[in-house]
Amino acid sequence: MDRQKNKNRILFAEARTDLALEAGERLQDDNAVPQGLRVETLQCEDADAVITRVHVESGEAARRMKKPMGTYITIEAPTLAGEDEGYHQTVSGLLSRQIRELLPGAERTELLVVGLGNRAVTADALGPKTIDHLAVNRHILPFYKEEMKKKPFTVLSAIEPGVMAKTGIETAQVVQSITRSLEPDAVLVLDSLAARSIHRLYTTIQISNTGIAPGSGVGNHRNAIDSQTLGVPVIAVGIPMVVDAATIVRDALNDGGRHPGEGAERKAAACLEELQNMYVTTKEIDEMTERLSFTLSEAINGLM
Amino acid sequence: MDRQKNKNRILFAEARTDLALEAGERLQDDNAVPQGLRVETLQCEDADAVITRVHVESGEAARRMKKPMGTYITIEAPTLAGEDEGYHQTVSGLLSRQIRELLPGAERTELLVVGLGNRAVTADALGPKTIDHLAVNRHILPFYKEEMKKKPFTVLSAIEPGVMAKTGIETAQVVQSITRSLEPDAVLVLDSLAARSIHRLYTTIQISNTGIAPGSGVGNHRNAIDSQTLGVPVIAVGIPMVVDAATIVRDALNDGGRHPGEGAERKAAACLEELQNMYVTTKEIDEMTERLSFTLSEAINGLM
Amino acid sequence: MDRQKNKNRILFAEARTDLALEAGERLQDDNAVPQGLRVETLQCEDADAVITRVHVESGEAARRMKKPMGTYITIEAPTLAGEDEGYHQTVSGLLSRQIRELLPGAERTELLVVGLGNRAVTADALGPKTIDHLAVNRHILPFYKEEMKKKPFTVLSAIEPGVMAKTGIETAQVVQSITRSLEPDAVLVLDSLAARSIHRLYTTIQISNTGIAPGSGVGNHRNAIDSQTLGVPVIAVGIPMVVDAATIVRDALNDGGRHPGEGAERKAAACLEELQNMYVTTKEIDEMTERLSFTLSEAINGLM
Amino acid sequence: MDRQKNKNRILFAEARTDLALEAGERLQDDNAVPQGLRVETLQCEDADAVITRVHVESGEAARRMKKPMGTYITIEAPTLAGEDEGYHQTVSGLLSRQIRELLPGAERTELLVVGLGNRAVTADALGPKTIDHLAVNRHILPFYKEEMKKKPFTVLSAIEPGVMAKTGIETAQVVQSITRSLEPDAVLVLDSLAARSIHRLYTTIQISNTGIAPGSGVGNHRNAIDSQTLGVPVIAVGIPMVVDAATIVRDALNDGGRHPGEGAERKAAACLEELQNMYVTTKEIDEMTERLSFTLSEAINGLM
Repeated sequence: MDRQKNKNRILFAEARTDLALEAGERLQDDNAVPQGLRVETLQCEDADAVITRVHVESGEAARRMKKPMGTYITIEAPTLAGEDEGYHQTVSGLLSRQIRELLPGAERTELLVVGLGNRAVTADALGPKTIDHLAVNRHILPFYKEEMKKKPFTVLSAIEPGVMAKTGIETAQVVQSITRSLEPDAVLVLDSLAARSIHRLYTTIQISNTGIAPGSGVGNHRNAIDSQTLGVPVIAVGIPMVVDAATIVRDALNDGGRHPGEGAERKAAACLEELQNMYVTTKEIDEMTERLSFTLSEAINGLM
Repeated sequence: MDRQKNKNRILFAEARTDLALEAGERLQDDNAVPQGLRVETLQCEDADAVITRVHVESGEAARRMKKPMGTYITIEAPTLAGEDEGYHQTVSGLLSRQIRELLPGAERTELLVVGLGNRAVTADALGPKTIDHLAVNRHILPFYKEEMKKKPFTVLSAIEPGVMAKTGIETAQVVQSITRSLEPDAVLVLDSLAARSIHRLYTTIQISNTGIAPGSGVGNHRNAIDSQTLGVPVIAVGIPMVVDAATIVRDALNDGGRHPGEGAERKAAACLEELQNMYVTTKEIDEMTERLSFTLSEAINGLM
Repeated sequence: MDRQKNKNRILFAEARTDLALEAGERLQDDNAVPQGLRVETLQCEDADAVITRVHVESGEAARRMKKPMGTYITIEAPTLAGEDEGYHQTVSGLLSRQIRELLPGAERTELLVVGLGNRAVTADALGPKTIDHLAVNRHILPFYKEEMKKKPFTVLSAIEPGVMAKTGIETAQVVQSITRSLEPDAVLVLDSLAARSIHRLYTTIQISNTGIAPGSGVGNHRNAIDSQTLGVPVIAVGIPMVVDAATIVRDALNDGGRHPGEGAERKAAACLEELQNMYVTTKEIDEMTERLSFTLSEAINGLM
Repeated sequence: MDRQKNKNRILFAEARTDLALEAGERLQDDNAVPQGLRVETLQCEDADAVITRVHVESGEAARRMKKPMGTYITIEAPTLAGEDEGYHQTVSGLLSRQIRELLPGAERTELLVVGLGNRAVTADALGPKTIDHLAVNRHILPFYKEEMKKKPFTVLSAIEPGVMAKTGIETAQVVQSITRSLEPDAVLVLDSLAARSIHRLYTTIQISNTGIAPGSGVGNHRNAIDSQTLGVPVIAVGIPMVVDAATIVRDALNDGGRHPGEGAERKAAACLEELQNMYVTTKEIDEMTERLSFTLSEAINGLM
């Protein structure tokens, strides 16, 4: 009984989001911003976009944010869900610059791009589909002129490691194997994310230098893919394609402004439990995955 | 202000479901079963399935159910979301028999199958994907032996009319044009449905003789596709692939057992409005659409 | 025996091509240009493209060309098989102008676009895939301002009729039904073509005002889709995606410059017979279908 | 000039086939069967299939066959291009047994399955599509009961390494990395093949213990994937999905029974050169790839 009560409390407390920005907003709403959490905001007027940097700089901040220490850059581009190609190009350029800032500043960078997720699951296909459009050049490097190799440029390779349910192998193990063999200067990991708020779907890009933590992303990769496990800097780029269904209901319940009575709580908790593994999205998700995979690939191709 | 209150009330009242079974359950829960609503239930022990027939026999019942008068047969097959091929074959057989009962009882039946929905939108692709697996035979009929033509059999043809946003043409107009030209004995319309309850996803099949009403289905066809508009009997077959997101939140709020205060109501109403055009589903939807399209096509091929 | 000889002769004689340009070249090679066959050529220097108009103006010319009387415009764009987006845009513009010239010159044109072929067969998918990218506007016409409706503009709708093996219905019957119901000013039919020569794959666009003749195209639509059967002008646009395998072998054999001996002829004829329903293409066909579907759709969207 | 002559000779001589069976037949036709080439044939009457084992047992045989030394098993199943599910199951069973014979005979076998080829190129997609249907179990092994682990069984994992043009990485390097990390007992490599003869398309399965040689398969993997490079036994399974276009023309020319004159030879050689990278196939290739991917996956799942 007490155990059930605890479980109910956990169900109500856990607002799942992959966005550091939303995790920070939640702490602000609760007047609970910890030391070591620092936020900078930059309005890009010409691009109709806002860039926010969330720096998680203490263990306490990381614990409260439920995110590893590091830098999380968010591009909020409200019309990214639209069809305007020019706007998508502008955002690709913005994204390209944000990625470059997190990359090691060498003259020449060998970058291994990893498209996480399951191509056969629409909500999880953003990573693999982005890989499809990359202009990889690692294999044609031997044919480059000597002069060209001297100037700063990016060498691209890409893999789609698949998901454990389909390969029988931990995604992290596949990525580690390839990384050890290729020895790139950095790894760029692409993933579909889950947001807390509906209006973030398709319109927010998160770039971080913390890699992918266990249990994050739509596909829930269990083992970390980060600089510690791979031995090179790992940059993660993701876009929210779904909202966790339980999170939406929880937020709606909390919007009532009072804690519900115990009977109501029990019923609501049952509802929340049933909602596990369910997500909320729109009928546009197939089209958005297609379109945003180009926005991401253009940004990465633009690194060269 | 009063207008907003009204709107809030409507938002709270409208539990959207394409399933007559759920609409009937709601009326029962509210102790509001009207005259002219009749329900029969049959347990198929050997198939681990329940067949329910909802007869909407009065205008009052139709108004309260928000469904046209007619017969709605529901096959509840709880393990249909699983991979057991034998079970899918059993359910295909059950479905085949239910469809046949609603078909005109002629010796030979020319049946035009219509796969409603948008192939490129996973949540709306069940109809078009089912069409892909049909063993159509109308075009090879001239090569059939005379003897064969005499015994009772089914002549199948199939079309995928597309969706208005992609064709610029009302779906109903496309279906009418083809129906007038082919003059089939009956039209069988396939569609993805929206349920009210999560546990109905992928596990319930609805067969009705009322056709498709405006605003129903995941794709929200605006004009009716029914026996009145087509001039021949129209049987509709559908499976819930999504739950309306607002419906889930509304049900969770109502589970609190009391009407919320006005402030809370306003907030919750805002949340419900934001949820319009959002749906709840699972990561399995791509795979389920693929698998259930075979379950449906096998049932239709089994009519021959 | 004589029958076999005849058959051999036919097998050697029939060089199958959907391109009037190639049919004309063959007659020129054989010094057999009939009266009523007139050819104009225009070099588009800025676009690196050649536009040729073949006018088939007599019954004799039609018989020898194995093509209906009418005008066949060919855009030869040698680098269309490449990735240069700017070049594809230029060719879309050229194509747009050629289509407009064949359209009835009214102030406002209602155009029904028909994507022929089978989406599930790569070699035959160009039509359906082009339809996917069209900016249809017929359904939003009621929301247009009065002023706009007065200036010359194009009203677009689109259908994908499917193929008979999948629908059980003659493609021509589906197109006729919809055309009768919509009453457009013209019908634009898109199709994958078969060329005689490999270097035409993906690089040649044919526009004609003769519609689609029985047996042409990759999908071999059996009944005519033309102005006579539809009652409105029919413009056909197609791109060669394959070469008939028998044609390639036949041409190689004929390149020997002598008629082979009877034994050799028999063997070669057996080989040609085995090659029926086989086609020659490249590994790039999937990618080319995707890319060229955008080149065609941009041209059609550019009519508005 | 002489160089051109040589090149012409090579063009005429090289009949490209991935099937050891066809390479052996060619040597037989030329009365040039070398020592160390041994062929056994077994008629499976109940399965309407012929199993042939070609043993390449000497360096001379390998050189003449243009195939590495080893065992090549061929299942010729003439109706495998058809839809009969029962027949496909029978052939899956036959294939399962042939694979098992080449596997190391341990009590428990960890098998890594590699789906070679490019999912986006129909002619090259058989490997990746087969991977999609595998019942991998390596990741759930920790949850198996102890008793079960003791009896002989197969542990399956699977990867899709992609193609170099899309990843920038040699396919062989990807496979090596994963193999080193997983340390399986054997690797099973799946690939689309090119045959010499049209009637082998979709109806012949080759199983060999020689791995994949450079330049073989539709995708032309340049580096070897074999027991020497991977350090464990490598079994390759493939089905011809295309015929090399130049091979067909060459065979047709040779069927003439005489060597052509020099002028004719020059023309024919030019034709053959133009045909490089072209292949011959049928409109059914998309459907066949889908269906045969299930036949292969059932055989592999049947190993467990």
